[in-house]
Amino acid sequence: MKIGLDMMGGDFAPLEAVKGVQLYLAEENTPAELFLIGDQPKIEQLLSEHKISSGKIKVVHAEEVIDMHEHPTKALKEKQKSSIAIGFHLLASGKTDAFISAGNTGAMLVGALFSIKALEGVLRPTISTIIPKENGGTGLLLDVGLNADCKPEQLNQFAIMGSVYAQMMLGIEKPRVGLLNVGEEEGKGNILAQATYPLLKENKHINFVGNVEGRDVLIDKADVMVCEGFTGNIILKLAETLYDITNRKQIHHEYFDRFNFEIYGGTPVLGVAKPVIIGHGISHATAFKNMILEAQKMIAKDVLAKMKEELEN
Amino acid sequence: MKIGLDMMGGDFAPLEAVKGVQLYLAEENTPAELFLIGDQPKIEQLLSEHKISSGKIKVVHAEEVIDMHEHPTKALKEKQKSSIAIGFHLLASGKTDAFISAGNTGAMLVGALFSIKALEGVLRPTISTIIPKENGGTGLLLDVGLNADCKPEQLNQFAIMGSVYAQMMLGIEKPRVGLLNVGEEEGKGNILAQATYPLLKENKHINFVGNVEGRDVLIDKADVMVCEGFTGNIILKLAETLYDITNRKQIHHEYFDRFNFEIYGGTPVLGVAKPVIIGHGISHATAFKNMILEAQKMIAKDVLAKMKEELEN
Repeated sequence: MKIGLDMMGGDFAPLEAVKGVQLYLAEENTPAELFLIGDQPKIEQLLSEHKISSGKIKVVHAEEVIDMHEHPTKALKEKQKSSIAIGFHLLASGKTDAFISAGNTGAMLVGALFSIKALEGVLRPTISTIIPKENGGTGLLLDVGLNADCKPEQLNQFAIMGSVYAQMMLGIEKPRVGLLNVGEEEGKGNILAQATYPLLKENKHINFVGNVEGRDVLIDKADVMVCEGFTGNIILKLAETLYDITNRKQIHHEYFDRFNFEIYGGTPVLGVAKPVIIGHGISHATAFKNMILEAQKMIAKDVLAKMKEELEN
Repeated sequence: MKIGLDMMGGDFAPLEAVKGVQLYLAEENTPAELFLIGDQPKIEQLLSEHKISSGKIKVVHAEEVIDMHEHPTKALKEKQKSSIAIGFHLLASGKTDAFISAGNTGAMLVGALFSIKALEGVLRPTISTIIPKENGGTGLLLDVGLNADCKPEQLNQFAIMGSVYAQMMLGIEKPRVGLLNVGEEEGKGNILAQATYPLLKENKHINFVGNVEGRDVLIDKADVMVCEGFTGNIILKLAETLYDITNRKQIHHEYFDRFNFEIYGGTPVLGVAKPVIIGHGISHATAFKNMILEAQKMIAKDVLAKMKEELEN
């Protein structure tokens, strides 16, 4: 398997990306061939400085970089020689099997949506986040911002995609799927939630457990929580601040450490034909390593084939 | 001024309500006459046990109680002799100037919406919550569940009502109003947020500071945060669990103590012609005292007249 890695994305690029590659190569199971995309001289110098040499890595030169604050569509169009554009080009042309970047999130989303195909039958791809549960487990919340307005049919697909991801990637055997809502009973909620509930209830591809409320988000009531990207994005960003605030207030506790989203690696774009993983701008070496492992696992387990199958039948 | 208090509402009624009345009477400034509505023999026995006797209290017998899990509309209709129904009757007929209950929230909302009038020009009343900010301050978030689907014009009115409330009740001189959204820039967001932004920007009755994201909810970026009741309700209930979870994990810190929403008293229904305050089911004595003080302040400052004025001009 071949994994493309944008070496120029993130606040600490390319150094932390290089260190992430080093960590990955030190793992026991490393079947992936890595395509390191970015400023070749810089990357090669860092590889040499860190004494990294392996037949598994190949540097692909990219003479441009899309900055964090550039307009995604415009930048992708104008900077064809940027690491993100080249990364998607390699992915789209089949030269790689997955693409990872901690760079401009918007450009990564635009690239995922427009340079590679959607999985057959998918109305809208989605992005998710891990939610650390009080009991030590993890839940999956989706959509967290790709789709600010949604239709019930889209939420129904998010439920399937999230369910397959939770099962195959998070190792949850029969993931409980909950609809994020403002009340427990069927019939509660806004128009979208009211219309989505019956679809989830009838959906034979998921283990629907009903509505989950705001009070259930952090507790172990559902493994997959489905909502439109407006509410999901606000929850995600609020959850991220819990780590920052507890750090600033010197409240040190294992539970709040788990709100350091860097430890989870990155966010996969679900519903596109190949694994695309988007990292946080603040990604350090461990995050890069975890994103490579995540892509590797998605390829090895053929998660997307399973998703396609569940969406089709 | 005359304030009606439902003595039968909440998990610890009527005892904690009685103790709340006692705490109120021990305050320095107690201009209010209290109408204690509920099971007269029980209330009088508790008053006697607690050696509470004051010319400022009057017990009003109610032979029925609406339970926490009864269907609001049905219960209000069928239980005309319940403490909540009588409370609204006293309020609507002008025998009291405000009404407080920690009972069935749905019944309180239905009562507020249908037994007393909306403030002139108000499209939809709203409920809000205090949000404890990292820096020790407090913000106001609204709507938090009364309106799961909203129109831009409604959000625009919530901004005005929240602003007046923050100014007159929370003592914030020129409250910064933010639109809860998924990005910073104008034009971001779902259809509702996109359509609401220009209204808030043009609104001369508020100090609009732009979009606030999930990451801004707990920090001091805006004093009033406006959203539809779906997202708001989920944030509120999620925030409430932070208190529970930190308690269960024995993480003791002043910041998380402030997520004990009981300390703020109750939630006023904004946009109706008279103060109606809804308490948490778990309300203890202090919460009841704080709700009485809140109603007293709303009457004394004539907050609703100011709201009406700002909404009209």
